[in-house]
Amino acid sequence: MVYDLIVIGGGPAGYLAAERAGHAGLNTLLIEKRFIGGVCLNEGCIPSKAFLYSAKIYDGAAHGEKYGVTATGLKLDHKFVVGRKNKVVKTLVSGIQAKLKKNKVTVVMGVATIKGRSAEGFQVEANGEIYTGAKLVISTGSAPVTPPIPGVKEGLESGFVLTNREILDLEEVPANFAIIGGGVIGLEMASYYNTAGSKVTVIEMMDKIAGPTDREISEILLKNYEKKGITFNLGCKVVGVEPGKVICEKDGKTLEVPADKVLLSIGRRAFTDGLGLENIGVETERGKIKTDDKGCTNIAGVYATGDVNGYSMLAHTAYRETEVAINNILGKKDTMRYTAIPAVIYTNPEVASVGETEETAKAKGIDFEVAKLSMMYSGRYVAENEGGDGIIKVLIDKKYRNVIGVHMIGYHSSEIIYGAGVMIETEMRVEDIKKLVFPHPSVCEVIREAIFEFDD
Amino acid sequence: MVYDLIVIGGGPAGYLAAERAGHAGLNTLLIEKRFIGGVCLNEGCIPSKAFLYSAKIYDGAAHGEKYGVTATGLKLDHKFVVGRKNKVVKTLVSGIQAKLKKNKVTVVMGVATIKGRSAEGFQVEANGEIYTGAKLVISTGSAPVTPPIPGVKEGLESGFVLTNREILDLEEVPANFAIIGGGVIGLEMASYYNTAGSKVTVIEMMDKIAGPTDREISEILLKNYEKKGITFNLGCKVVGVEPGKVICEKDGKTLEVPADKVLLSIGRRAFTDGLGLENIGVETERGKIKTDDKGCTNIAGVYATGDVNGYSMLAHTAYRETEVAINNILGKKDTMRYTAIPAVIYTNPEVASVGETEETAKAKGIDFEVAKLSMMYSGRYVAENEGGDGIIKVLIDKKYRNVIGVHMIGYHSSEIIYGAGVMIETEMRVEDIKKLVFPHPSVCEVIREAIFEFDD
Repeated sequence: MVYDLIVIGGGPAGYLAAERAGHAGLNTLLIEKRFIGGVCLNEGCIPSKAFLYSAKIYDGAAHGEKYGVTATGLKLDHKFVVGRKNKVVKTLVSGIQAKLKKNKVTVVMGVATIKGRSAEGFQVEANGEIYTGAKLVISTGSAPVTPPIPGVKEGLESGFVLTNREILDLEEVPANFAIIGGGVIGLEMASYYNTAGSKVTVIEMMDKIAGPTDREISEILLKNYEKKGITFNLGCKVVGVEPGKVICEKDGKTLEVPADKVLLSIGRRAFTDGLGLENIGVETERGKIKTDDKGCTNIAGVYATGDVNGYSMLAHTAYRETEVAINNILGKKDTMRYTAIPAVIYTNPEVASVGETEETAKAKGIDFEVAKLSMMYSGRYVAENEGGDGIIKVLIDKKYRNVIGVHMIGYHSSEIIYGAGVMIETEMRVEDIKKLVFPHPSVCEVIREAIFEFDD
Repeated sequence: MVYDLIVIGGGPAGYLAAERAGHAGLNTLLIEKRFIGGVCLNEGCIPSKAFLYSAKIYDGAAHGEKYGVTATGLKLDHKFVVGRKNKVVKTLVSGIQAKLKKNKVTVVMGVATIKGRSAEGFQVEANGEIYTGAKLVISTGSAPVTPPIPGVKEGLESGFVLTNREILDLEEVPANFAIIGGGVIGLEMASYYNTAGSKVTVIEMMDKIAGPTDREISEILLKNYEKKGITFNLGCKVVGVEPGKVICEKDGKTLEVPADKVLLSIGRRAFTDGLGLENIGVETERGKIKTDDKGCTNIAGVYATGDVNGYSMLAHTAYRETEVAINNILGKKDTMRYTAIPAVIYTNPEVASVGETEETAKAKGIDFEVAKLSMMYSGRYVAENEGGDGIIKVLIDKKYRNVIGVHMIGYHSSEIIYGAGVMIETEMRVEDIKKLVFPHPSVCEVIREAIFEFDD
């Protein structure tokens, strides 16, 4: 039997590809080696949100006196949090399995290897069986980068060094917790474990945290974390991991960071190990599968969506890339755009961004104007944030007066940013946005306030 | 001296009119009788948000065991909450005063009466002085409706019956608290005082709460409130208020609701008492000032914006109406549209709506399709809402496939709804929205999920 489509990988890119293809009537096979839902659902985005919500409830009560709420004997039960996280994941995985079933997708659990192609299609092996698909979507995702630092390999083996996978199932809260890498994963785990009682130290090679985030926002975020008691070593290079400590160098000096556990979160790499891409000649570049704006690889009929193409490494990008690929497979015109991909850090405070930052706009030579406002311009923010130091930055194209970037730090940003993405995608100009009605009072009103800083 | 513009009323419509006019270089006078910021800032939207945030923190801790957080000796200090509310209001009022000053607006505190007109403009008296303005913006807002029910007048005088004004400064939490009117104000205060310890009973004449809210969402909201211990008497008419109780009739039977305090929140009416509209011939209709879609009354040069025109009774509508009026005064083309005015109830759960409901769409004869989804389609919602029963409804025009209404119940809805408003205003179609990238995981993703229920 020849499938219309074989999808390799059951994460956001893969399960959605299979769902959409099945829904459209394609006879679809999905092969997943570990678990449906992928890293995002099982050991990434979703579990971390469950953790952070418990931390939020705890922090709310712990600092409730600012709002007239006091409590004694406040406790965060970490084991309960892990157990609840597992239930949340189970619920959501079941939901995806149900959708796959509803859309008549055949699911095979096993490691997929591309073996070659015949007149009928591409041959993929799993569990010793050969499956043939007229078309192929590769959504094998990514894996944590593990640097060749002395002690890291041994640490990973002994369980002293953890990745995003193990950190979400840790049974005990480590007294001293060192985090290598101050990107989103590192910061979210730093926040949770700080609340849960760890003494957290983040070690970051760059001179700022939160990767490509607007520099000023990244600095406000850092201050907030420091106020909570998290220690940061920026511009600091890890040179070794030894039982009980992380050794690093900063400004030519050697530092030792005490650690009962170490989280390695320096980034992720496209995962294609053992996939057999070479058997059908799929082109890669530094480990990433090369694709065009339809998601198509150099081989007609073979698509690659999600982290494996290395464009953005975000689940929501993966969703859209996959939809573009499936639409093209179905003969519908569709093209991927990366102009308005939101990015969120779900800690307290939240950070959310979409579009160009001042840094990227400058690098691209875009002629832009920027408006920066304190979140205190929002009445709701004032009512809900004693001592809040959130800001918003809006960037517009100087000539065409359309919004090209929005960056926020503060409570609710995570749920506001999508609307700014809509504005960017629809190329709304200052004068258009001025005519919109935002609910009052709301934090999203700061977008409106910022827009009024610009002339039409 | 003749002002270019006199604005009567310093609430959202009035202070923004003055700000915008001053910013544009008009010599502007603002007359306010009570306090800058109006009802919204001083005794409405903002104070209630400060109250509700304290309740949210308390409820989070009180039900934290679902998320692994436990506390003992949890207390909500109502007096502190009132004190903090006053500080929040003071901060925001100062902000508006600073903006007025920055835009060179002259502010007079006093009751304004329109006296007549001369060749130079309209004459307005305040504190015994006569001021002349070439143009006039009337933004005198609204006042609570006080029905001719026996005992209400006496209750208001004795302090047994309260309006939105007094309820926000109550020193003690009443043991038994009766609320007449299950609209937004009634429900927000019911929620807060329920958390603060009152035994709350809401009496509503209609067979549903939350006014024009989608019926199904209104029913889910009701269930949530009842679970928290709030009692509702729907389809119930108040026939008298006596010390210690509210007497009402339901299905021909008489009920007595015990009450230490009574909140009267059955609605608001446009406020023009003693304003002297008749002296320049401004037309009204059932107490509301009649305006066109530029905010202009029947008298050229006289505009009325905000609650006083009776269109929508929401601060954010007032903002936009005022901007339309000022733009027209400045000779810029601008027209008011009421197509995408959001409405929010800030309780837990939150309710947010924009555009047509099924009820209004049917009444208007619009041919529409509706998609309804559980909020559980959002991974973030699942991670953050144990036992949550939120839903989203999206309405599209059947022929043109554009979004015409979005209705949500659940945490975060208040900050999500504006983006749905953008979609309605820009007439986005199903196929356009399908191509947007929403951050994952987020609650706003349910909009995306709902949209995928529709064919392009």
